[in-house]
Amino acid sequence: MTRLYFEDVVLGERNRTGEYAVERDEVIAYARKWDPQPFHLDDAAGEASIFGGLTACFSHVFAIHSHLMSRRENRLAILAGLGFADARMVRPVRPGDRLHIEFEAVAKRESRSKSDRGIVETQFHLLNQRGEEVLSMLGRAMVERRPATIEADSPGRRS
Amino acid sequence: MTRLYFEDVVLGERNRTGEYAVERDEVIAYARKWDPQPFHLDDAAGEASIFGGLTACFSHVFAIHSHLMSRRENRLAILAGLGFADARMVRPVRPGDRLHIEFEAVAKRESRSKSDRGIVETQFHLLNQRGEEVLSMLGRAMVERRPATIEADSPGRRS
Repeated sequence: MTRLYFEDVVLGERNRTGEYAVERDEVIAYARKWDPQPFHLDDAAGEASIFGGLTACFSHVFAIHSHLMSRRENRLAILAGLGFADARMVRPVRPGDRLHIEFEAVAKRESRSKSDRGIVETQFHLLNQRGEEVLSMLGRAMVERRPATIEADSPGRRS
Repeated sequence: MTRLYFEDVVLGERNRTGEYAVERDEVIAYARKWDPQPFHLDDAAGEASIFGGLTACFSHVFAIHSHLMSRRENRLAILAGLGFADARMVRPVRPGDRLHIEFEAVAKRESRSKSDRGIVETQFHLLNQRGEEVLSMLGRAMVERRPATIEADSPGRRS
């Protein structure tokens, strides 16, 4: 695994994760624990819903998003997730779907109060096997600066 | 369980869910599956993090939010979750915390294209046992209108 620091983030560079296969048993088991609405649990209720079939709950889709990001070979050195703006469920996720994320950093700035970190904003698009967007959102995270960079910036310190 | 329809939503009315006890084993098991960052898995890595201890991953906190909302006695007749604006992790969630949600509808409007539904916007505050906010977000959902209301609105239809 390679750690990507704040300095390594290139605005506008497109990235893509691996794939996640959404399985029926997991859709039902996740929803039973975290969001037991009938149309996430039962085929008949799914068919009667506005989606016309069983769908994964939002929380499960969000978890799959985390899973895909956390399994990357090159991972951002995140100190803390700060939140999300404008998360939109564009289309339902169904058993049998294969999801991946396309994402790009859209803004970054150094912390004003702490020299060891910065804030990165990333636009995420979660897509299915047909290339249709299912979830879009803008994430904000606090990211480590590269240690060497901080030393070089520090006044009165030589290496 | 009582179904709350679009017509039942009162803007500005404060509501409160039950509590959820966050257990250490669940924090680790959830993160291992969905967001295996060291500071969600291991005490020593947690202590070395900016939070100074083991914390629950964002996706787990979001799942707890769904859990608390889905277990209410009076539940909104949701056709589809549409998304979230401005989700902010204000404070970390730690093993031993007890969480509840305080929430209120802040906007509602009937669908322009379909007479059986409307859009409701809800401001959520997830709080810990000390009353400190840990997550705030604004949710948007498509909600069923009360069936009788739709019939009464339909021109040319009498019951």
